[in-house]
Amino acid sequence: MSTPSFAPALFQSFEEKSDPSHVAPRLAALRQAMKQAGVDAFLIPRADAHRGESVPASEARLAYVTGFTGSAGMAMVTADKAHLFIDSRYTLQAPAQTDTNLVEVHEVPSMSFDLKPYVPAGAVLAYDPWLHTPGSVRDMETQLRGHAKIVSHANLVDSVWEDRPAPPVSTIEFLGHNRAGKTAADKIAEIQASLKADGADAAVLTLPESICWLFNMRGRDVPNTPFVLGFATAPAEGSPLLYLDPAKITPELKNALSGIADVAASTDLPGALEALGKDGKSVLVDPHSAPMAVADTLTKAGARLVDKRDPVLLPKSRKNDAELAGMREAHKLDGVALAKFLHWFDSEAPKGQLTEIGIVTALEAFRREEESCIDASFDTISGAGPNGAIVHYRVTTKTDRTLKAGEIMLVDSGAQYLSGTTDITRTLSTGSATAEQKDRYTRVLKGMIAISMARFPRGTSGAQIDVLARQFLWADGVTYNHGTGHGVGAFLGVHEGPIGISSRYPLPLEVGNVISNEPGYYKAGEYGIRIENLIVVQECAGYPGYLDFETITLAPIDTRLIALELLTAAERDWLNAFHARVWTEIGPLVSGDVKAWLEQATKAI
Amino acid sequence: MSTPSFAPALFQSFEEKSDPSHVAPRLAALRQAMKQAGVDAFLIPRADAHRGESVPASEARLAYVTGFTGSAGMAMVTADKAHLFIDSRYTLQAPAQTDTNLVEVHEVPSMSFDLKPYVPAGAVLAYDPWLHTPGSVRDMETQLRGHAKIVSHANLVDSVWEDRPAPPVSTIEFLGHNRAGKTAADKIAEIQASLKADGADAAVLTLPESICWLFNMRGRDVPNTPFVLGFATAPAEGSPLLYLDPAKITPELKNALSGIADVAASTDLPGALEALGKDGKSVLVDPHSAPMAVADTLTKAGARLVDKRDPVLLPKSRKNDAELAGMREAHKLDGVALAKFLHWFDSEAPKGQLTEIGIVTALEAFRREEESCIDASFDTISGAGPNGAIVHYRVTTKTDRTLKAGEIMLVDSGAQYLSGTTDITRTLSTGSATAEQKDRYTRVLKGMIAISMARFPRGTSGAQIDVLARQFLWADGVTYNHGTGHGVGAFLGVHEGPIGISSRYPLPLEVGNVISNEPGYYKAGEYGIRIENLIVVQECAGYPGYLDFETITLAPIDTRLIALELLTAAERDWLNAFHARVWTEIGPLVSGDVKAWLEQATKAI
Repeated sequence: MSTPSFAPALFQSFEEKSDPSHVAPRLAALRQAMKQAGVDAFLIPRADAHRGESVPASEARLAYVTGFTGSAGMAMVTADKAHLFIDSRYTLQAPAQTDTNLVEVHEVPSMSFDLKPYVPAGAVLAYDPWLHTPGSVRDMETQLRGHAKIVSHANLVDSVWEDRPAPPVSTIEFLGHNRAGKTAADKIAEIQASLKADGADAAVLTLPESICWLFNMRGRDVPNTPFVLGFATAPAEGSPLLYLDPAKITPELKNALSGIADVAASTDLPGALEALGKDGKSVLVDPHSAPMAVADTLTKAGARLVDKRDPVLLPKSRKNDAELAGMREAHKLDGVALAKFLHWFDSEAPKGQLTEIGIVTALEAFRREEESCIDASFDTISGAGPNGAIVHYRVTTKTDRTLKAGEIMLVDSGAQYLSGTTDITRTLSTGSATAEQKDRYTRVLKGMIAISMARFPRGTSGAQIDVLARQFLWADGVTYNHGTGHGVGAFLGVHEGPIGISSRYPLPLEVGNVISNEPGYYKAGEYGIRIENLIVVQECAGYPGYLDFETITLAPIDTRLIALELLTAAERDWLNAFHARVWTEIGPLVSGDVKAWLEQATKAI
Repeated sequence: MSTPSFAPALFQSFEEKSDPSHVAPRLAALRQAMKQAGVDAFLIPRADAHRGESVPASEARLAYVTGFTGSAGMAMVTADKAHLFIDSRYTLQAPAQTDTNLVEVHEVPSMSFDLKPYVPAGAVLAYDPWLHTPGSVRDMETQLRGHAKIVSHANLVDSVWEDRPAPPVSTIEFLGHNRAGKTAADKIAEIQASLKADGADAAVLTLPESICWLFNMRGRDVPNTPFVLGFATAPAEGSPLLYLDPAKITPELKNALSGIADVAASTDLPGALEALGKDGKSVLVDPHSAPMAVADTLTKAGARLVDKRDPVLLPKSRKNDAELAGMREAHKLDGVALAKFLHWFDSEAPKGQLTEIGIVTALEAFRREEESCIDASFDTISGAGPNGAIVHYRVTTKTDRTLKAGEIMLVDSGAQYLSGTTDITRTLSTGSATAEQKDRYTRVLKGMIAISMARFPRGTSGAQIDVLARQFLWADGVTYNHGTGHGVGAFLGVHEGPIGISSRYPLPLEVGNVISNEPGYYKAGEYGIRIENLIVVQECAGYPGYLDFETITLAPIDTRLIALELLTAAERDWLNAFHARVWTEIGPLVSGDVKAWLEQATKAI
């Protein structure tokens, strides 16, 4: 086909792994187990105990039972019904992956929807306390009060799961000071100070991003994100304890943590929680991310819970100088790969032979030329023409589409370099574009530039500035139904909280936050547009008390789709300065045709 | 002085009514009463049971004890200390009004600040349950847990108040269908439907704005706002009951409410609440506006509380066609008064003899030429030169300042017409202005125009669009420390919730909302700038699913302070169209010099 010169993709697969014919026997086995347990309804969420976007195969219970492999969702199985709840990203995918004769698919606005209409009156509804948070259990109890009984129960899917994959055991890598910028000991001291301020004697950490950041370590337990799955307890005074699968506790890990933290087996966690309880400790447990089992074990043993956000999330979101240097380095490496890719795309696309899978494979190959690129940070969204309008499109061999000359191509991708994490979207011309497409593209670009140029007083939240990105689309009566930006980790998750740009992010932006800036426009059945750079919150030079953004993404923005007359002089200046910087930074790192292409692509307009 | 031709102001007084020498004996009497009651600390909030911005003299306990007359604040008196908590609006006023040898003044960000540092350990802190809400009591209990005991108690200020004024008894006026647009019966049916949806058997209404709106009546119990003070209970089925001072129950009131609501004495309210409790009813009580006494009486008698927003507030905020027609009419009348005033100001100001009080008096006189103008909607903020930088400045004979030629004058005022409520700010040139002043004025104007021209999808909140008004100031590293807009009532409160434009207003804007649009800029010690129009949320013609604003204020904006080069063509077009409309609507209603002045003032730039 179109991309014979590239080796097959390693980071991303394109097969449809679900087989709806498995649904019937698995549902039957689960219902048998439910009957024996005296349970009328059982919940099967997508999440594992660590609530990451990716879960290891050993935790993919929702996919095992229903066939649905999306990154969010929940099933509820009763004696005679099976409901699968998904969000609007998966409206097409979910019915294609499950057996719709046996499973009713419901689109819900979020996973905190009202369960009551689906739960039979008087039913005993069981949930696995490791897979739900105290916050979500509280919500369900409120919804079902006087209607059904909700009980905690050992996981019934696990009891019938045949050939369940083993849990992942990844090598754990330590980050030295050059990359982490701060020793684990210093980070732990900072968290301990915040625990004291919150009146907590200890915290239980259950999010892998928090544990990886706090102990300066990275693993490969899940795809796309260098997570080590495990737990930790951090006392307000004294050494923290890490709870990990013993097989992960390499001599190297033991050594590196010596004097900083003790390491125990995951199976020791419940005993440790009980000990905290028996001592009557006040323990910080994040009600929106920790497993209910953690909160339950603590309170039953006598602990007082401190309901607060995981204390690592905010410090982690404020990247330090070393982390920012790594992120800038990663974006330079990514800029080189993007220049090669965009040059290749421009020469191939007009031939009308490129496929969505071929585009993913080529982009991955260009990224893998850099050996410190160890993974994609998420499955590339490669949307040709109308597929570009599917916001979270993931191409499979079944949906793969050949890009016709003249169509618009949307490519949203990112990589994990040892130095940092990237996330970039470009929307590409393949020849002529309609006046409407250029108008929409330019309004999206004006929104992205408005965020890029924004100056705002300390204390301003992402919720407050979101409208700057939308105003030009709103002026023409259109918008996009996703946030403008999400937090990005430093060689960690490509999506991380608790800051971002949308009405869901009320926390103040702080110096060192790395966020995406990605307005878009989607015309169903026709085309999709999104332009995304990563930006860093910084002190605004010359304006005391004010902050602004540094853009760290270094790849050209397609100027062929711009309706020039819609740009103000200030917007044009921003774009030209951005392109000049791309040329200055990336130009010396490429050569030959790629360099010539880049010079052209970064010319002032 | 400067304004010999105007009769004295009736709506506003300029005397300093506080006398710090009263503080000592009153504090002593209160402490004596506290001792007898076994109370270590007593709270004296500004608010009465109805939580309006204005309170009748009979409820001005905070002013009685401390001398402080601001519209928000709270005192706490202990055996040996007296604390007065105020917000930044009153930093200058509070110390001037109270006896600072006896009272410590503390500036706090809001009245939900942490009390704990001020309460002696182990103290018994008493509050009057009619003057605090369940929400605020809950907050104080959380703050003081394990530190002090908080108890409900009869008001100890009342027990020592000498010569306490009698409660107000105003004539109650009924609004006919032409002005209310909807019968009280229809409004009640709407509220009853929402009570059923909320699972409430009844609601207790305690806000005068809700009661006045629901029963289509207006009174004069407090200055500036046509409120009737009273309570109401509204069952989900059957007739509501109004609880009013028997002296207010005129034959006219009885007659007008016949078949719609029954009327009882205020003293009957506790018994009625107990009856609801004994019947085991679910009763909606707004935890953020109802008195704690209402919630307490209900729960003690056996009622279940439904914690929800006062059900009248949202329907009231969506003005109907008759209310909007009234508001437009009021703004026409106000536009005539403003044209006369601005013309007068322009001829007098260059002489350098105008005083702040003279300006208030003149503006009031021009408004009172229209007989349906019954009050100011708030005390005019008349800030000459540096006084313009005091956001909530209220001129007194002590602070009155003569406006020097060349200084900037800020006038923020409003009126209550029988047809509606107005609120307008203009910042006026008196000759030359500095380049900095023009730059700031133009950035404020650009922000006001950005809100005026905004188009946004249904579901967008005031919090989301607030930044549109701030962006041009932020771009130069400055901002204003107040909201961009507040809700305005239809011949009701000039400040009404629950919608507005600032990060404190997360509710979606809805068709019929009337809001102020008033960005500003304040340079302490030098000058203040604010430009304010009222705007109405409407369907956006030609853009299905989108909303925009109709501007209803009709008075010229001073173009002499504009730095023209900072305006875009679209902004200039908006301003010219606005002025053309002012000329078309107000021009025919004025004559002679005023007309000639208006023609000039509304010329296209």
